Amino acid sequence: MSDIQRAGTTRRYSDFCVHNGVVHCVEVPPDARADISTQTAQMLESLERFLIAAGSSKDRLLMATLYLVDMADYAAVNAVWDAWVPEGTAPCRACVQVVRLADPGWRVEVAIQAALG
Amino acid sequence: MSDIQRAGTTRRYSDFCVHNGVVHCVEVPPDARADISTQTAQMLESLERFLIAAGSSKDRLLMATLYLVDMADYAAVNAVWDAWVPEGTAPCRACVQVVRLADPGWRVEVAIQAALG
Amino acid sequence: MSDIQRAGTTRRYSDFCVHNGVVHCVEVPPDARADISTQTAQMLESLERFLIAAGSSKDRLLMATLYLVDMADYAAVNAVWDAWVPEGTAPCRACVQVVRLADPGWRVEVAIQAALG
Repeated sequence: MSDIQRAGTTRRYSDFCVHNGVVHCVEVPPDARADISTQTAQMLESLERFLIAAGSSKDRLLMATLYLVDMADYAAVNAVWDAWVPEGTAPCRACVQVVRLADPGWRVEVAIQAALG
Repeated sequence: MSDIQRAGTTRRYSDFCVHNGVVHCVEVPPDARADISTQTAQMLESLERFLIAAGSSKDRLLMATLYLVDMADYAAVNAVWDAWVPEGTAPCRACVQVVRLADPGWRVEVAIQAALG
Repeated sequence: MSDIQRAGTTRRYSDFCVHNGVVHCVEVPPDARADISTQTAQMLESLERFLIAAGSSKDRLLMATLYLVDMADYAAVNAVWDAWVPEGTAPCRACVQVVRLADPGWRVEVAIQAALG
């Protein structure tokens, strides 16, 4: 058995990878036509499912990078984020506005590292 | 006691998180109205304080991601960076120009991973 | 001997850093005037050499962040990427379009983490 556990592996990417007690995961909005609050909420719900499947949870995040395509969405994203992260367990977080994400409808994307356990 | 150590934790983010011998940290300029050299210098001074508080130091960096909002600032950022990093200990470094950071005055943001010890 | 191994260390960056069973690496295109397919292929060839030198390999990737300067390059980058990653071993992957990379000719840059072994 490998010391690396992957899930949802395609030719291009895995949904998550676990190694050395840390899970890596990138998540995007399941519905590219939804508004920013819905995109963010659904993305974080999906992220949470991956975290649990990997043997971690949303109160074990270490680092998150949030990519937005419009900083005007910042307040809406934060409202969902702040309610989603269990109090006292917020990770380090970078948040930057990029030009575009791979799907032109995606308004947000998140990459995280979290501790197992 | 948790195997994750966090500092400066708000509803949204932590100043740094330590797990498994690695510290994660994101830092932004303390003064959004300062020029790029000052923003970079103050940001790195603050980062260094966090590294020390976490049990690491600036000669233990593994990876740094620098986000600029204008690549015309590249030389000024590098001048401060090159003088700040102890010789022979520079980490891997990605440097990209994004559209905007969360505060419209911020011209630079940095995310790092560093080894404890 | 340090518990951190670095290679190609300049005043500004290292080609890769190894710590705690994980290698960190950032790679850019060796030829900034080449087309996107060539830039991507040469960048990934160079990345693979670094991975091997570090004691890892391209089937041990955990996380990759791809920075493009034009999402119109997405298909060409993916064609090279999909053929380069050994089937069944793809890492987590974020892919975002930024405004510019440090060299105005670079159309792609990649930051990765991979497991040793």
